[in-house]
Amino acid sequence: MEKIRIGIAGYGNLGKGVEMAIRQNEDMELVGVFTRRDPASVTLATKGVPVYKLEDAKEYKNQIDVMILCGGSATDLPQQTPELAQYFNVIDSFDTHANIPAHFAAVDAACKANGTLGIISVGWDPGLFSLNRIYAESILPNGKTYTFWGKGVSQGHSDAIRRVAGVKRGIQYTVPVDEAMDQVRSGKQPELTTRQKHTRECFVVAEEGADLAQIEESIKTMKNYFDEYNTTVHFISEEEFDAVHNKMPHGGFVMRSGMTGEGEQTHQMIEYSLKLESNPEFTSSVLIAYARAAMKMKKEGCVGCKTVFDVAPSYLSPLSGEELRAHLL
Amino acid sequence: MEKIRIGIAGYGNLGKGVEMAIRQNEDMELVGVFTRRDPASVTLATKGVPVYKLEDAKEYKNQIDVMILCGGSATDLPQQTPELAQYFNVIDSFDTHANIPAHFAAVDAACKANGTLGIISVGWDPGLFSLNRIYAESILPNGKTYTFWGKGVSQGHSDAIRRVAGVKRGIQYTVPVDEAMDQVRSGKQPELTTRQKHTRECFVVAEEGADLAQIEESIKTMKNYFDEYNTTVHFISEEEFDAVHNKMPHGGFVMRSGMTGEGEQTHQMIEYSLKLESNPEFTSSVLIAYARAAMKMKKEGCVGCKTVFDVAPSYLSPLSGEELRAHLL
Repeated sequence: MEKIRIGIAGYGNLGKGVEMAIRQNEDMELVGVFTRRDPASVTLATKGVPVYKLEDAKEYKNQIDVMILCGGSATDLPQQTPELAQYFNVIDSFDTHANIPAHFAAVDAACKANGTLGIISVGWDPGLFSLNRIYAESILPNGKTYTFWGKGVSQGHSDAIRRVAGVKRGIQYTVPVDEAMDQVRSGKQPELTTRQKHTRECFVVAEEGADLAQIEESIKTMKNYFDEYNTTVHFISEEEFDAVHNKMPHGGFVMRSGMTGEGEQTHQMIEYSLKLESNPEFTSSVLIAYARAAMKMKKEGCVGCKTVFDVAPSYLSPLSGEELRAHLL
Repeated sequence: MEKIRIGIAGYGNLGKGVEMAIRQNEDMELVGVFTRRDPASVTLATKGVPVYKLEDAKEYKNQIDVMILCGGSATDLPQQTPELAQYFNVIDSFDTHANIPAHFAAVDAACKANGTLGIISVGWDPGLFSLNRIYAESILPNGKTYTFWGKGVSQGHSDAIRRVAGVKRGIQYTVPVDEAMDQVRSGKQPELTTRQKHTRECFVVAEEGADLAQIEESIKTMKNYFDEYNTTVHFISEEEFDAVHNKMPHGGFVMRSGMTGEGEQTHQMIEYSLKLESNPEFTSSVLIAYARAAMKMKKEGCVGCKTVFDVAPSYLSPLSGEELRAHLL
């Protein structure tokens, strides 16, 4: 079997996750990691795989089938994905929802000009949650969709806590409110405010001598991050922080409550949920499945920018159509 | 907007459900119902829509974009879907898992010989549950998938009860075992026997003077239907039967428990569930969404037999690619 040759651009948590996910897929091989750091300073978990300078990536154009971009959505991907799409089929996990149309246009232009294929915004939200929204809304047009996130670590909110004066270490968990989810499950189609859907739980290690009441107040009243939520702040020791809060769990729920039948009186409920011990490792696993899809679609002549909405599920699987129909349908 | 012209072949619970689902989708219209009964004896809920003899269907070849087959999988669909695929793009809900490959081949041959498109085995299992199996297994290759059904009415098991001597009315609910589901959710990847996964709950109205102990024994020991399950039999009055057991609820769960990361030690859990007050109405709603997809794919030149695995999610939605990316991604 000829393996799908994968390149990784960016070797943080996500890049390492992709490296691990490749090991779980026999039809793939990692051929190189590209970094903005000094390649000599980067040690991979996989022996024998070279590390290159990101700026030299184009020289490896013919050795890589799909380049998986593992940078951040704020500044890395808007620049890197269109740039690398000139030379490679690309996959990214761009997750700034509001900027997806612009990012799509930039990647689409680069792909079409160079005969490559890109699949953007791959992961779980955007990604698997988006898929569940489109399936559920297409099937139950009369209904209401709810997305709940958590329990999980929000990187953005954790960063915000750490900017508060007197905070040495900090982490924030987004927690979906059980009562709100139960209301949705009951078929009531409630209108839920931001405060009713999620709470925010913060764990903080304070600097010695810091004013704890002031820290708590600064966090709870922070605009755009915490002021619209019921927030709790726990002060803990650095030992406890390191022992308990060293993982990146996440997850969430997509629910659609719909009505069908004569007079639209019949309740129908669709629910999808993820419970992830590691957010970056799971996102990496999704990226890898879509890398396989990109390879298959490209072979059929597909070019331009795509999203998870445009990819038929069969492309994600290493199994043949016959095998899928016999065993998974 | 030019509407998608739908025909319905077979007007039982599923056919009526499709009729209702069409009303919820502005881009569709019902142009005719085809029946093996005397058309004059069939009264539709929708005024002004004609009822035709099924055998005359081919005369309406140019008036219908997609024919939705609403017959049973045992004898109707294996004959009707390939037959009607000679003249129409077709959608069916063929659900005899073991016979899907043969059915696929028959429909594929008819479609390819006549330049039509067919999508078979559309519904929730096979259908949405199959989609969740393929997505989850493609993303988490190291893991185990579990499907639980219920709580819901099994038509086959209800029929089996009604064949027992002394049974006047009977209905059977398949019930997933909470403890088994919780074990799966815990990430343990248990091996579960048939008995551990589901129980069967029967409600029976006995004939006057019937031997209740004998009925209960006959049901509980019935081979292939009940002998491998923990089964309970409740004898109730006909009044209670009519008042309480007059619906066709169903649903179920698809779960995948997988491991990722270095050493494959990280638990990742994907869960999908349906809670349906009406099984036929929900299945109808899925059929309608795939009728839209069939129409779009056919316009792009696609012919032959397909399954839900081959259909990109965007085809199911009435929204444009731009709208989907802006609002659902």
